[in-house]
Amino acid sequence: MDLPEPTSRPLKSRTLDLVRGRIDMSHGGGGRAMAQLIDEVFRAAFDNPVLDRGDDQAQLDIGAGRLAFTTDSYVISPLFFPGGDIGSLAVHGTVNDLAMAGAVPKWLSSAFIVEEGFPLADLKRIADSMGAAARAVGMQVVTGDTKVVERGKGDGVFINTTGIGVVPAGVDIHARRARPGDRILVSGTIGDHGVAILSHRQGLAFETDLVSDSAPLHGVVAAMLAVAPDLHVLRDPTRGGVAATLNEIAQAAGVGIRLDERALPIRAQVRGACELLGLDPLNVANEGKLLAICSEADAERVLAAMRAHPFGREAAIIGSVVEDAQRFVSMDTVFGGRRMVDWLVGEQLPRIC
Amino acid sequence: MDLPEPTSRPLKSRTLDLVRGRIDMSHGGGGRAMAQLIDEVFRAAFDNPVLDRGDDQAQLDIGAGRLAFTTDSYVISPLFFPGGDIGSLAVHGTVNDLAMAGAVPKWLSSAFIVEEGFPLADLKRIADSMGAAARAVGMQVVTGDTKVVERGKGDGVFINTTGIGVVPAGVDIHARRARPGDRILVSGTIGDHGVAILSHRQGLAFETDLVSDSAPLHGVVAAMLAVAPDLHVLRDPTRGGVAATLNEIAQAAGVGIRLDERALPIRAQVRGACELLGLDPLNVANEGKLLAICSEADAERVLAAMRAHPFGREAAIIGSVVEDAQRFVSMDTVFGGRRMVDWLVGEQLPRIC
Repeated sequence: MDLPEPTSRPLKSRTLDLVRGRIDMSHGGGGRAMAQLIDEVFRAAFDNPVLDRGDDQAQLDIGAGRLAFTTDSYVISPLFFPGGDIGSLAVHGTVNDLAMAGAVPKWLSSAFIVEEGFPLADLKRIADSMGAAARAVGMQVVTGDTKVVERGKGDGVFINTTGIGVVPAGVDIHARRARPGDRILVSGTIGDHGVAILSHRQGLAFETDLVSDSAPLHGVVAAMLAVAPDLHVLRDPTRGGVAATLNEIAQAAGVGIRLDERALPIRAQVRGACELLGLDPLNVANEGKLLAICSEADAERVLAAMRAHPFGREAAIIGSVVEDAQRFVSMDTVFGGRRMVDWLVGEQLPRIC
Repeated sequence: MDLPEPTSRPLKSRTLDLVRGRIDMSHGGGGRAMAQLIDEVFRAAFDNPVLDRGDDQAQLDIGAGRLAFTTDSYVISPLFFPGGDIGSLAVHGTVNDLAMAGAVPKWLSSAFIVEEGFPLADLKRIADSMGAAARAVGMQVVTGDTKVVERGKGDGVFINTTGIGVVPAGVDIHARRARPGDRILVSGTIGDHGVAILSHRQGLAFETDLVSDSAPLHGVVAAMLAVAPDLHVLRDPTRGGVAATLNEIAQAAGVGIRLDERALPIRAQVRGACELLGLDPLNVANEGKLLAICSEADAERVLAAMRAHPFGREAAIIGSVVEDAQRFVSMDTVFGGRRMVDWLVGEQLPRIC
């Protein structure tokens, strides 16, 4: 990173230089410069009456019932990638963790850790992207926090989003509800996000026109619940990919899982890139896909509901839950064999989601 | 930081080496090593039935009413300091932001961004401290997230805590409720946290036996509300200190504020250290103090309630709200003059809370 441009002086009467300005330590100091940054970058991007009260906490009027509550930090590299950026990703990731409980996403907190010297223009681009993504799903960013760390003590921008959603009455979706005989569905092609990010990283010697699948999944979940209120399990296979997620479910529910490789939707570009890099698409991160487990009786109805939704057009039934005291996940391969689908041992693709 | 010790292998049958082990990238990879870290460090520290469900979101059964919702990231240096550590601070800070709405703190999320090579023993010490602080205030850590960044892309540990509390019926505490004639109270001595952290930082040439005032304030707030349900404003003067907080209130409420320097409780050690370092105690961060604004009629009752509580023994009435279209904060000095109390322009004490 270059030496910082002089930032605008923290005087109330001047506005920030959102074209050439950079973050300095005063923007995290709790004084006037921080107040100005919050006003001109974050409040402008997230504009809503709850946030505008300017207190250190939001106050939310709610009805009795069940809330879903989830947190995620985003430390991805690069910050801008084909199909999205850390701002939209931070909204979609938290929306999806809420949606995986069947919840309607409602309120978001947004906490930024910014490295000294970070360009204000990039910060504004990220905040605006976050604000647009939140509005698109009907969420309000109601409270936030901004910290600045010295150059070399961070990596551009880290974002934490924590979300609250409302779970509709009667919905009870948990990993432990997977039962032998249940069907396993995926909402579309797998591995798109991980490969799109890799293709954009410096130093990796391949390129594709693939874009991240980063997308909010509450809509397709609502469509699935409308036809099958008794959905058993929903999970979005992000870090660790489909393999880690299915192993977590098998562990939690005390069951085995058997996949059919021929049924797995994988783009040719993703398959090719994975072969080139020695990756298994089952281990690669997704950001706009979900795995669903439901009774055999519900499976075709759920599949049809997914395929009728823009974010589920390539949905497929990819396997079944089986009895297995050892809780193994295995896959019948295209060659007629069967192999274990283990979660990754060690590191594969750091900081990809 | 030294080169990493070999960490325990990510096999289910082995346990982590919590004495000599260090964080590696696999602990954030979404695979088995991350699951093991979460089990042995975080789940062990935060043990409760909601978290134990192991889903990507917590589900909370709630009654109708008003929730308070707040987020904060903690990027302090050093991580361990006299009177606390980043773990207890991350709980107290979020408890206090909830308490400043009069809310009863209930649920916490905890998101860690850990730098590669960080000692597992320190991580466990921090998580255990967080768990103990949460239990002490009756909060449950119900959902979490763990990310690992490469060496040199972070600074040991950053923590985000996001909290939900329940606001009792009839309580309406907001900065905009400050009215001319209201009294301003502080719950104890100011500047203790900032000076304690500074005294512990490498490279600063003074030492005191002062400890941070890091403490949860929901109890003293409950005691104040019991005698004065119509409290107007509560704020904890953290980053930016008392000066920044009072200026924020003056801005929000469209009033002026006048302090009486003789009434300000400041420890001799803090005063001395501030003189040595050229700091104004009004700009120094606090972590276990609050500012309260209430009607003149309520002031003595509120003061008595504060002084009867362990975290309010040195409480004082320090000034009044006045009419002032320019929204100035000023202070009558011990020398009989009057000076402006501005918020800090620029940086003073980075990463102190």
